[in-house]
Amino acid sequence: MNQHYRETRVRVRYAETDQMGVVYHANYLVWMEIGRTEYGKSDGFFYRELEKEGIVITVVEASVRYAQAARYDDEVLIRTRVAEASSRMITFAYELLAGERKLATGTTKHLFCALSEDKRELRPSRLPEKYRGYFGIS
Amino acid sequence: MNQHYRETRVRVRYAETDQMGVVYHANYLVWMEIGRTEYGKSDGFFYRELEKEGIVITVVEASVRYAQAARYDDEVLIRTRVAEASSRMITFAYELLAGERKLATGTTKHLFCALSEDKRELRPSRLPEKYRGYFGIS
Amino acid sequence: MNQHYRETRVRVRYAETDQMGVVYHANYLVWMEIGRTEYGKSDGFFYRELEKEGIVITVVEASVRYAQAARYDDEVLIRTRVAEASSRMITFAYELLAGERKLATGTTKHLFCALSEDKRELRPSRLPEKYRGYFGIS
Amino acid sequence: MNQHYRETRVRVRYAETDQMGVVYHANYLVWMEIGRTEYGKSDGFFYRELEKEGIVITVVEASVRYAQAARYDDEVLIRTRVAEASSRMITFAYELLAGERKLATGTTKHLFCALSEDKRELRPSRLPEKYRGYFGIS
Repeated sequence: MNQHYRETRVRVRYAETDQMGVVYHANYLVWMEIGRTEYGKSDGFFYRELEKEGIVITVVEASVRYAQAARYDDEVLIRTRVAEASSRMITFAYELLAGERKLATGTTKHLFCALSEDKRELRPSRLPEKYRGYFGIS
Repeated sequence: MNQHYRETRVRVRYAETDQMGVVYHANYLVWMEIGRTEYGKSDGFFYRELEKEGIVITVVEASVRYAQAARYDDEVLIRTRVAEASSRMITFAYELLAGERKLATGTTKHLFCALSEDKRELRPSRLPEKYRGYFGIS
Repeated sequence: MNQHYRETRVRVRYAETDQMGVVYHANYLVWMEIGRTEYGKSDGFFYRELEKEGIVITVVEASVRYAQAARYDDEVLIRTRVAEASSRMITFAYELLAGERKLATGTTKHLFCALSEDKRELRPSRLPEKYRGYFGIS
Repeated sequence: MNQHYRETRVRVRYAETDQMGVVYHANYLVWMEIGRTEYGKSDGFFYRELEKEGIVITVVEASVRYAQAARYDDEVLIRTRVAEASSRMITFAYELLAGERKLATGTTKHLFCALSEDKRELRPSRLPEKYRGYFGIS
């Protein structure tokens, strides 16, 4: 399995802080999603293209361990790797850092699903073969 | 034109605060949207039904005047009225209060649009006649 | 330990949906937070009062298992219980439902911390005795 | 008055879309705030430094005119200028574009306020002289 982390960065937005003076915890899931969105791009994989084919990647599990708080205007490094993957599911692992400070680690587990025409129904599917290489899926 | 305000309430969420210790200003637009969503319900109008027919209400203008800050756990009263409406567009006006304190006033202007099958294209349309009565549109 | 679920409800906001046509997954953490905020209220515990004393409840772990998708305008039932608690930490467990449909289950683990005057520093602390009863902490 | 636009860019996040398949309108206010946050940085002004001195910039008015929809993964160019400014208030004007497409224009009006120790009270104040040059305030 691919143990290689790929990296992207976000700048903490004022909107992401809360009255405790730090980033609201739910935003870490948003950053993790940015990490997996960017994951395949360096190889030319764009999630928006996959969605146009009617395949979506749904989240079935998410977990975060919070270490240190992120603050307004911090630059956050999002490190993303594929922890486990098959043609039916994929699990990403993440590390979030601000400079030397570790902010959090997390994982998200996903199913590949086919979206019905009216976008109302989803059923488990498989990642089309042409995309599997991006995630080290044989 | 309908000068009658209809009212709904929201409780301020921790997620809606920012490090200034008050509600982040963009959330007022979210509350205003809840106000117009609830506006027609007492008469049996549900926006989700309209969308199922492929008609969406797009926002073309929004403005807010902020008076006093809303704080975590405040109960916010959202007062919504139709300021102007035709078969092609509608403008809502809002008052936001927390108890005796006026938080803000605002307006949003909307166009009725038809959504294409693939949900990728929008074109100006008219509100179907059966819905016009909900907004005082003759 | 307290196995009793307490319940609160939220209406799905348009702002909470994403282009997949369902609620964006990170919002489930926001709903879970509403659940724990409301948890103690029926007994007269208000988190805002605790914060005024300089004690905050920080999130150190969060996990969600997603079952079925929540949709715009659904009424979501948030069921919250204390899974584990001491004077230093507390773990909440959650069930989210929309009518008969189970949307998700989740847990969040928290530390009680003292906030410095300038709101810049946090250090592990204990929940003041007068509040412990609200969470079944002896 | 400074008519010069300064530019910054954001990538549209999945979390920012809604079930209409486009960016939820309230997020434009978040982008506009990123624009003004970045405005002074090229000159070495950091809003976080101002807040540490107990001076905050509160929003008193915001308005947006929406032209074309932004979509997931679009790169949005945020163009920000100072439309009007004094030692007591400042108004920013914004243009948002995605490639050749104009997404929106907007303005926000702000007051400089002093934040009390406990971060509970705000009173109108003046921007400290040393910061005025960043915004063309004489």
